Amino acid sequence: MLPDSRNTTTVCLRVLYADTDRMGVVYYGNYLRFFEVGRSAYMRARGSSYDELERNGTFLPVVESHVDYKRSAGYDEELEISTWLGELGRAQVRFAHSICRGAEVLASGYTRHAVTNAAGKPGRLPEKLAQALLGPACETHEDILAT
Amino acid sequence: MLPDSRNTTTVCLRVLYADTDRMGVVYYGNYLRFFEVGRSAYMRARGSSYDELERNGTFLPVVESHVDYKRSAGYDEELEISTWLGELGRAQVRFAHSICRGAEVLASGYTRHAVTNAAGKPGRLPEKLAQALLGPACETHEDILAT
Amino acid sequence: MLPDSRNTTTVCLRVLYADTDRMGVVYYGNYLRFFEVGRSAYMRARGSSYDELERNGTFLPVVESHVDYKRSAGYDEELEISTWLGELGRAQVRFAHSICRGAEVLASGYTRHAVTNAAGKPGRLPEKLAQALLGPACETHEDILAT
Amino acid sequence: MLPDSRNTTTVCLRVLYADTDRMGVVYYGNYLRFFEVGRSAYMRARGSSYDELERNGTFLPVVESHVDYKRSAGYDEELEISTWLGELGRAQVRFAHSICRGAEVLASGYTRHAVTNAAGKPGRLPEKLAQALLGPACETHEDILAT
Repeated sequence: MLPDSRNTTTVCLRVLYADTDRMGVVYYGNYLRFFEVGRSAYMRARGSSYDELERNGTFLPVVESHVDYKRSAGYDEELEISTWLGELGRAQVRFAHSICRGAEVLASGYTRHAVTNAAGKPGRLPEKLAQALLGPACETHEDILAT
Repeated sequence: MLPDSRNTTTVCLRVLYADTDRMGVVYYGNYLRFFEVGRSAYMRARGSSYDELERNGTFLPVVESHVDYKRSAGYDEELEISTWLGELGRAQVRFAHSICRGAEVLASGYTRHAVTNAAGKPGRLPEKLAQALLGPACETHEDILAT
Repeated sequence: MLPDSRNTTTVCLRVLYADTDRMGVVYYGNYLRFFEVGRSAYMRARGSSYDELERNGTFLPVVESHVDYKRSAGYDEELEISTWLGELGRAQVRFAHSICRGAEVLASGYTRHAVTNAAGKPGRLPEKLAQALLGPACETHEDILAT
Repeated sequence: MLPDSRNTTTVCLRVLYADTDRMGVVYYGNYLRFFEVGRSAYMRARGSSYDELERNGTFLPVVESHVDYKRSAGYDEELEISTWLGELGRAQVRFAHSICRGAEVLASGYTRHAVTNAAGKPGRLPEKLAQALLGPACETHEDILAT
């Protein structure tokens, strides 16, 4: 599944000392944090926000995560996190992510989310959100420099 | 304020790769996580638990934290976190902490906590908890190997 | 691939406030930290340690991680992390993990690791380590209470 | 010590789910991560970078940290981290920080750093860096939206 640039949102972030480990590179678990940064930007770029979604009673708990680590990311490097919709079902959403440094892909992966209410019961994605997620970004390509 | 061994609870933990940073040692922010490990052990050693406290409507949000870093802690090293009561007022609690590797003190510091209800309104420490915190540990010295 | 109890190492840990997020449960990225706790215990139970391995010039950077989240883990709960060898090749190792609360499986997954030298060049697993990883634990089943 | 706007660097960041805890707000230990974001921006705004500093053999390990928590910060909120020079000695540097949400100060504090070489031996701050840290930002006020 190749990302379509119209339907991809890219956000930049700079690697903190806090993100690195003794190997001098980003700790493998922190990529899931970076994926969250990407998802959050993807939704905001489509006029939504995960916070608002929860306040309206819809939750998207992660039910599966996968990361392929290809090259390591060093301290203070600027990374680009690209996010696109991998799959959108009635009761689940899959976000696909890639993390690049310039032209190099450092990591890629995905997170799969169930749709539930506040009590954790399975639910359906509100139609309005589904349409927003499927559509292009309000701005074609946002470029937010994140620390 | 020197710790009194009867009133001090010590817990061991092993440094994870996740805790380290590019300098090869524990990231400075992670000591506040270690302090939490210490507080939690201190309360459990006195027959209480912070989880139970919250379920009964009392919260202890941190209002001040302080750390003096003396020596660095490396990956896979076993650390001892000692916690004792620094101060107990009607509306606040201060926990004092030291982090050692054998006989060496690596860091020391404290966390000061307000007492509130679930809505964040100032409250008072339940008398039963106050007595438990002031008393000695159920076991004199617990030695829990963490991670 | 079902774990064989002789070849599985289980370690306990207690969920910290630091591990939780606004949903009141362990943040999805922190499971990769828990997997590290499991791998580390697995190696130590076989007379080895990852720290020693690195000091002898062998590194095991993670090249793939996967987590299936089945049930959420709450604050202060005691979890059991079980780790076993998923696959052992000349140039890679796969560790399989499950995270349980009593009889309930909360999450499972794996991490795949390349074998490299300090400069990141592909290498081979030292024969002695390979034998140790394939063998049973020195103690049949270690039960270390963490934090 | 009041910040002087010419000598203060402010950077924005958005609170991640990863930063929050069960209380629904930013975990107290993560403020030290936010302080790092501030320090890093402060140095970059003056034409330097901590990464470059280390590559030239000067390290600034934290020897003391202090945080006063006044109000909590919620998920997805935009925070402003302001950093200024608290003190600059031959062998140490102190950065002062405040974290605001609009006009509200949520937290303030400082980090004190020793100056060492790669081996951890005490050193002196390179004169060029000292001048850069004492001077105003290259751009008067940078406003970088993070995550």
